Amino acid sequence: MADYRKMWEDLGMDVDTHDQLCEVLPQAFGDVYLSQENRPESMDYYNFVVAEIHGVRPAELIEHQKKGGKVFGTFCVYVPDEIVFAADAIATGLCGGSQFWVPGGEKVLPTNTCPLIKASVGARLDRTCPFFRIADMYVGETTCDGKKKAWEILAEDVPVHVMDLPQMKREKDVCSWADEIRTFKKVVEDFTGNEITAEKLAASIHMINNKRKALERLYAFRKNDKLPISGKDVLLISQIAFYDDPTRFAEMTNKLCDELEQRVADGISVFPEGTKRIMLTGTPLAIPNWKIHNLVETSGGAVVCEEMCTGTRYFERLVDETKTTVDEQIDALAERYMGINCACFTPNHGRIDDIIRLAKEYKVDGVIDVNLKFCSLYDVEGYTVERELQKAGIPVLGIETDYVDSDAQQLRTRISAFIEMLGA
Amino acid sequence: MADYRKMWEDLGMDVDTHDQLCEVLPQAFGDVYLSQENRPESMDYYNFVVAEIHGVRPAELIEHQKKGGKVFGTFCVYVPDEIVFAADAIATGLCGGSQFWVPGGEKVLPTNTCPLIKASVGARLDRTCPFFRIADMYVGETTCDGKKKAWEILAEDVPVHVMDLPQMKREKDVCSWADEIRTFKKVVEDFTGNEITAEKLAASIHMINNKRKALERLYAFRKNDKLPISGKDVLLISQIAFYDDPTRFAEMTNKLCDELEQRVADGISVFPEGTKRIMLTGTPLAIPNWKIHNLVETSGGAVVCEEMCTGTRYFERLVDETKTTVDEQIDALAERYMGINCACFTPNHGRIDDIIRLAKEYKVDGVIDVNLKFCSLYDVEGYTVERELQKAGIPVLGIETDYVDSDAQQLRTRISAFIEMLGA
Ligand code: SF4
Ligand code: SF4
Ligand code: SF4
Ligand code: SF4
Repeated sequence: MADYRKMWEDLGMDVDTHDQLCEVLPQAFGDVYLSQENRPESMDYYNFVVAEIHGVRPAELIEHQKKGGKVFGTFCVYVPDEIVFAADAIATGLCGGSQFWVPGGEKVLPTNTCPLIKASVGARLDRTCPFFRIADMYVGETTCDGKKKAWEILAEDVPVHVMDLPQMKREKDVCSWADEIRTFKKVVEDFTGNEITAEKLAASIHMINNKRKALERLYAFRKNDKLPISGKDVLLISQIAFYDDPTRFAEMTNKLCDELEQRVADGISVFPEGTKRIMLTGTPLAIPNWKIHNLVETSGGAVVCEEMCTGTRYFERLVDETKTTVDEQIDALAERYMGINCACFTPNHGRIDDIIRLAKEYKVDGVIDVNLKFCSLYDVEGYTVERELQKAGIPVLGIETDYVDSDAQQLRTRISAFIEMLGA
Repeated sequence: MADYRKMWEDLGMDVDTHDQLCEVLPQAFGDVYLSQENRPESMDYYNFVVAEIHGVRPAELIEHQKKGGKVFGTFCVYVPDEIVFAADAIATGLCGGSQFWVPGGEKVLPTNTCPLIKASVGARLDRTCPFFRIADMYVGETTCDGKKKAWEILAEDVPVHVMDLPQMKREKDVCSWADEIRTFKKVVEDFTGNEITAEKLAASIHMINNKRKALERLYAFRKNDKLPISGKDVLLISQIAFYDDPTRFAEMTNKLCDELEQRVADGISVFPEGTKRIMLTGTPLAIPNWKIHNLVETSGGAVVCEEMCTGTRYFERLVDETKTTVDEQIDALAERYMGINCACFTPNHGRIDDIIRLAKEYKVDGVIDVNLKFCSLYDVEGYTVERELQKAGIPVLGIETDYVDSDAQQLRTRISAFIEMLGA
């Protein structure tokens, strides 16, 4: 990694502690990723992005700030990035995916909190992640109890705007969300000093749709019998989608897709025949949380789809690009975003339908329902998800996991047994 | 207890399992309550209600149903009972407060769920509580993750209407709540077949306000230096308020207050001089959860106030009775209910203000912040509550508790040490 020490110091980071993270990450990445055989060449770009994760993109964001631009940090796929980019600002995902940050979060949050929240709060308060330092404003939402209350603690350290996500999906709730987006637009305009015009919003809607299309195209390759790319590589790409420059990301991902097209034509598969096709469903897998994919793909399985926020929930369905006034565009945004089926809604039958549809589209042999420890929403909903999958004749394994490595061996045993059972 | 076996059988209850509960409850009640010295005579009424808890009130509800009336079960102090009673129906609180029901809830819910939710779901699914059998419809709300998702499981077994509580308290959120109350009114009208007129709603608002006034009057006695009634007795009364007939409850509570007035005049205190005045704040204490009060009041303390849903959040502030149209009355209901400060809102500064105000009004020596295990909302907010109390110079002890008895000894040690420290 290039020397970004000076930049980190300028960001007010705890550079010494951060060094420890810099030491372990390349090792973990090498073990999980670089050890794979026959990877697409175009993965080089994503390898580079991860290798320089705390350097190259942060430097771009700082460059943007030096020119007077703002950076907004987000934590949920319901928050419309389009609004941020339309104000010549940059949105970047901030969900923490490493155990490294968890103890910092536990200083102020209950241990009984999902690791994603603890890691996110810890990364900020311990000053050990450049993205968390760079973001001028955090955008929270009222999705789950833990996040809803964590904003209050974060707001003592950094400006936070919280969007009140409705908990149901009636017509009036879609209107409420449009209203929240209008409020958000005003906040972003005031904070950046830039007006959000219909032209600018149209451009950013188009840009983010292009990112979605690139991911949709990438995921389509996983419907093939022969898989030209591993599940963990796709996961990495999905994770990078949250913070990379959207235009460049779409471009690079389309370039990768061109390569994958050739691979399909050449009949190339990165998995031996008979590898079991696994779909994951559940809570998000924030970077660098690669545990489950790695376990599945080193236990005779291939992950072919993730019904997760780091997965299909992030890119499925486009925002209508035919609208010409800001008001209509915002309604179109609300419509698209409220179509995402997160367990934070009640009822949430739509998610069951999604899972069953995806299981068919991706021709899966079995589903693993992954729950981050202490996420009540997905944990309770998992009861229904697993029952409905069983009813549909799709084998399912429910697992609970954390950011610690200590459960890996036990999970491997269960996942191996599940995959073996699928072969029987 | 009279013989209600036939009634329980007719309710489809698991009577044999229920017998086990009937065996332990009188013992627990005797230990905690009847052992107290110098109790007000008017406590006889509440003793009777508890002794016959699964008999006398359920029989009344069944009588009401036989005459064609409906019973609505509720789980949160934001749900306006006024609407239910205005349709000649009866609202009854259903929150489960006993460990007895927890294992039943754990059959379908994660262990990492707050005991109140697990007990409530268990009481229904295991068919071991008459109230849960009697209620024709449950009224849920989107307050916390666990409850929000538990309704989906309960809805497979009993009609459930869920009210979408806003997560913030801006003006538009109060309007949203009024809108939810309008929807609820329609649901109640359809379900009961009875129209809710302005006259009927005025009468029920008046009736529930009277209950609030009676509780307010009762609580005022706890501001005295000499306490004419114990904290645990007041807790019991607060718990009974959730399911007793509102008019009779107000009458009996006012009768008790008359007796307490005489006690004050006579200088009677149920605690020796020097007893430390403790306020509890936090999650609700559903019947028969008397653990903390019992620990405090057998460790040199007296509980003089509960900033809890089984406490001040239940009765403070009245609904405006001057409105004459249903629309205005509903706005007045929304206004009053949205004034409650539960940790499910963000931000929730109002609760901190309430706690500090109450600590002064009740002249407390110290505050115990009580959190039911796995309640993220109150647990995270506890961080701020405890810090702000410290800033205000009010000693505070944070404890986490459950419905099991196994932590009682450890809690006693901590509570005793805290109370002792207050004396130093
Ligand atoms: S799981 Fe739900 S709350 Fe979490 S990022 Fe996804 S949509 Fe948002
Ligand atoms: S995984 Fe669950 S608990 Fe964690 S942030 Fe997402 S919704 Fe909240
Ligand atoms: S603690 Fe909050 S959610 Fe629970 S009953 Fe009280 S107001 Fe409702
Ligand atoms: S105590 Fe907390 S977790 Fe339990 S029902 Fe109330 S708000 Fe929900």
